[in-house]
Amino acid sequence: MSAANISRYPVPDINGLPQDIKERVLAVQEKAGFVPNVFLALAHRPDEFRAFFAYHDALLTRESGLSKAEREMIVVATSNDNGCQYCVVAHGAILRIRAKNPLVADQVAVNYRKADITPRQKAMLDFAMKVSNDSKSVCDEDFVTLRHHGFSDEDIWDIAGITAFFGLSNRMANFTSMRPNDEFYAMGREPS
Amino acid sequence: MSAANISRYPVPDINGLPQDIKERVLAVQEKAGFVPNVFLALAHRPDEFRAFFAYHDALLTRESGLSKAEREMIVVATSNDNGCQYCVVAHGAILRIRAKNPLVADQVAVNYRKADITPRQKAMLDFAMKVSNDSKSVCDEDFVTLRHHGFSDEDIWDIAGITAFFGLSNRMANFTSMRPNDEFYAMGREPS
Amino acid sequence: MSAANISRYPVPDINGLPQDIKERVLAVQEKAGFVPNVFLALAHRPDEFRAFFAYHDALLTRESGLSKAEREMIVVATSNDNGCQYCVVAHGAILRIRAKNPLVADQVAVNYRKADITPRQKAMLDFAMKVSNDSKSVCDEDFVTLRHHGFSDEDIWDIAGITAFFGLSNRMANFTSMRPNDEFYAMGREPS
Amino acid sequence: MSAANISRYPVPDINGLPQDIKERVLAVQEKAGFVPNVFLALAHRPDEFRAFFAYHDALLTRESGLSKAEREMIVVATSNDNGCQYCVVAHGAILRIRAKNPLVADQVAVNYRKADITPRQKAMLDFAMKVSNDSKSVCDEDFVTLRHHGFSDEDIWDIAGITAFFGLSNRMANFTSMRPNDEFYAMGREPS
Amino acid sequence: MSAANISRYPVPDINGLPQDIKERVLAVQEKAGFVPNVFLALAHRPDEFRAFFAYHDALLTRESGLSKAEREMIVVATSNDNGCQYCVVAHGAILRIRAKNPLVADQVAVNYRKADITPRQKAMLDFAMKVSNDSKSVCDEDFVTLRHHGFSDEDIWDIAGITAFFGLSNRMANFTSMRPNDEFYAMGREPS
Amino acid sequence: MSAANISRYPVPDINGLPQDIKERVLAVQEKAGFVPNVFLALAHRPDEFRAFFAYHDALLTRESGLSKAEREMIVVATSNDNGCQYCVVAHGAILRIRAKNPLVADQVAVNYRKADITPRQKAMLDFAMKVSNDSKSVCDEDFVTLRHHGFSDEDIWDIAGITAFFGLSNRMANFTSMRPNDEFYAMGREPS
Repeated sequence: MSAANISRYPVPDINGLPQDIKERVLAVQEKAGFVPNVFLALAHRPDEFRAFFAYHDALLTRESGLSKAEREMIVVATSNDNGCQYCVVAHGAILRIRAKNPLVADQVAVNYRKADITPRQKAMLDFAMKVSNDSKSVCDEDFVTLRHHGFSDEDIWDIAGITAFFGLSNRMANFTSMRPNDEFYAMGREPS
Repeated sequence: MSAANISRYPVPDINGLPQDIKERVLAVQEKAGFVPNVFLALAHRPDEFRAFFAYHDALLTRESGLSKAEREMIVVATSNDNGCQYCVVAHGAILRIRAKNPLVADQVAVNYRKADITPRQKAMLDFAMKVSNDSKSVCDEDFVTLRHHGFSDEDIWDIAGITAFFGLSNRMANFTSMRPNDEFYAMGREPS
Repeated sequence: MSAANISRYPVPDINGLPQDIKERVLAVQEKAGFVPNVFLALAHRPDEFRAFFAYHDALLTRESGLSKAEREMIVVATSNDNGCQYCVVAHGAILRIRAKNPLVADQVAVNYRKADITPRQKAMLDFAMKVSNDSKSVCDEDFVTLRHHGFSDEDIWDIAGITAFFGLSNRMANFTSMRPNDEFYAMGREPS
Repeated sequence: MSAANISRYPVPDINGLPQDIKERVLAVQEKAGFVPNVFLALAHRPDEFRAFFAYHDALLTRESGLSKAEREMIVVATSNDNGCQYCVVAHGAILRIRAKNPLVADQVAVNYRKADITPRQKAMLDFAMKVSNDSKSVCDEDFVTLRHHGFSDEDIWDIAGITAFFGLSNRMANFTSMRPNDEFYAMGREPS
Repeated sequence: MSAANISRYPVPDINGLPQDIKERVLAVQEKAGFVPNVFLALAHRPDEFRAFFAYHDALLTRESGLSKAEREMIVVATSNDNGCQYCVVAHGAILRIRAKNPLVADQVAVNYRKADITPRQKAMLDFAMKVSNDSKSVCDEDFVTLRHHGFSDEDIWDIAGITAFFGLSNRMANFTSMRPNDEFYAMGREPS
Repeated sequence: MSAANISRYPVPDINGLPQDIKERVLAVQEKAGFVPNVFLALAHRPDEFRAFFAYHDALLTRESGLSKAEREMIVVATSNDNGCQYCVVAHGAILRIRAKNPLVADQVAVNYRKADITPRQKAMLDFAMKVSNDSKSVCDEDFVTLRHHGFSDEDIWDIAGITAFFGLSNRMANFTSMRPNDEFYAMGREPS
């Protein structure tokens, strides 16, 4: 696949990248076996690349009352709602792997209300959809509902933060026509 | 998986079905290797079952200027827009098989505007989305645009008919909480 | 009025129709005094015609906890919401006759919330609007509410099925620019 | 029918009305043969009543490039879009009479795009819908389109003014649950 | 600023206005120190001008359970929702003055749910938004909620009436591209 | 004003902040004369704070074909559309200062289509609104339109990036109920 498929914008050669970005790209390649296109597409703007992944890591790698699979559920549900092909396909793969469940990503993408997830997780995704589509109406009652499901206020920040960050990511991927790598589609689909 | 998972409504035992329905169910089981849940869920109402599949067959098996893969694209795009898990998962599998393409179903489901399909197919799906969401505004200009892409008036009827029929199917599947069979998720995902 | 007014598509001559369709058309003409245009417009595709009317009959003629007038209320309310002139005008006439009430059809079409109908019927139409516009969110609470108004689960299937079927019908009528017969407008308007 | 049906608010006795209002009510009763409920419901607030009908008369009785029937089309189309039973039923009757056409009011209410009206009248109603639903986006191009159909700038003011005024009327009628008089439903339905 | 900036339509010379309108314009100029453009823009149609301001005065100057500041909150919240620059800027100024609060107008315009206002005032604005955007669904429960906050039925009419009237005003201002006077922007911004 | 007003979440004491964050906060205080609340509210999560401001600086301080005032227009228009009080009030102040224009911020917030800005700037904001509300439909034609107005592809990335980043910011501010500092409201309102 040519670089032209990855993004509307020029995609830099890995060897020409600033050293810190090059190291990050090579590390993910080492781990995943390929370079996810988001790294190449966003490297067009090194400063924004650094901030983007710093934000990403701050939200997705911190200690949290949300499991790693739950965080990916938020990404998948809001990304399908925003029509973001890159994030649904790439994070769908990660969700299948994190949840050790080959079915849950497609279920959550199309209609999380009918997915094989817990009522607590559905409440989490209801709130994510409100933050994504109607954040001006977020109110105290939303916090009461979420606490009722066992979420701490820090967990609630995590839900909102991941939703808001992937809202940015979805808009950037849609705007640049970022293409998901072919490798993602089948990852994690074998029963564990 | 228990029958309770398939639908909110009672799911009849295959052996207790009227003979014509039983034969249809056994035929699909023979061919697919399992019974797609839509056959079991809708068999709760035999008369509606017969009309549903007669309509389905009339639209999907007739000679048409639309290929079988194109017809499945319409199903997948409109079903994701309607949040119908059953139809996206089941017809996503069929689309992968018909198109001999392991990627196209997920692309079309999330955002057909960025899928690896032709401009003609994007125009077809633009029209399907208009029929699905704003049929009252369908107008002569829509026909002009589609003819420009080489669709005959009979092809256009096929696009609208499939969209309208799966709009019915999506609503029935959502209302009954119809569950896609586990088998569908991985079908057709190996490169051909 | 010329045949050209009835539909964007060619309208077959009654005498050239397949025998079973011709018999159905003549039977309705005998009963109503004229041939409703939906029979002529859909006869352009005999297989779809047969499936359409089989589905229609399965839903509208079966024994049900919904009266025949209530079933027509569902058709009229959802058809106006979908902007379907044919179905509002034709089924408005049928509703006036079934309900023996010259006012109720226009009331239900424009705003069923203010119509001279029972709270049970308003709950039925609230659910029909949800199935029509947001079926992905149909949930257990909707069933609880409807059972509270005395609807059985089979009655609820009837509400959803009629809504879904006329969603198909509305899209086909809008897409073909199907014209309501002049005779429908004044039917059932005299006080009973 | 009891006064309680006419409005959520108290409906004054005609004899207790201020003299000018009483005279207007008696004049309309003389002409129509009954008192349209809007006169009784709004008489609850005499100052607002006077301003409402002064505005109404300013728009609907002035010399205009819009015929009286065209002005009623605007009322009927926007009122159905706003779900206002009173205005669709009452002004539907007036439209049938002004247009000497028993069919046009129901056509325009449900879907003016398919009504038996001219392209000029459809452009008029397209603009009315934009003023009603998205006035912030009204722009120079809208004026160009309308002038192309032969509307003068004063005619365009009439379209916008009638749409805006009946937007007020629709909201007041919906809020007060104003009931259309039974007499309106059948008026003007006999072929002229 | 030239007259051309005030409105798409011709703006009459004050001296050429009918005597009653001229007197009203001069009175407001005397009081405010300038002539608000709405007076000049609407004077293009004297009869509509008279009805407009009669309606305005009937709602905004009558005795009411709503304070003058509360009435302006309704204007500001609904006008921003309708994208009406004239009404947000002009009535924002009036709200700051009536409330003796330099911050509240911008808060209410952007998101009244987070403004420094009382729960009663938020309930008032929730209802105003429903009347503005979904009046067909106004129901008994809305009245119960508002009465719970201490609003009388006459107060509720005031909320709905002001919302409906400024819905008309917003549409006329948007349609004519009515320009707010420069003087309004800074009025009432000094701490009281 | 107590810290409780600034955010739903605990607001750290400046002296307890990590050194790099403390220095940034003190620098902005030195320059502005007060600490904008966004710095205090987001300091609750130091890693996210660092990423947020790194992203902010990457977009707003880089060389660009967009002027600094134009970048603030994007912030103000999208933030009002998202109902974000903090961003409209704070960035409205910055826009007035950058543009040396006391009127433009309120105009752009309420309805940029009628603001005293250039056609090029309106095209920029049309695209920002599409990225904000319908990014899945961004297409080649959007780029053609923007290039026609003189925007380079890098400028277009700036428009989309600022829109996407402030979409994140709006959601975080709405979710935390972040309060704009009182100082912002009157800044830049004196004619320059």
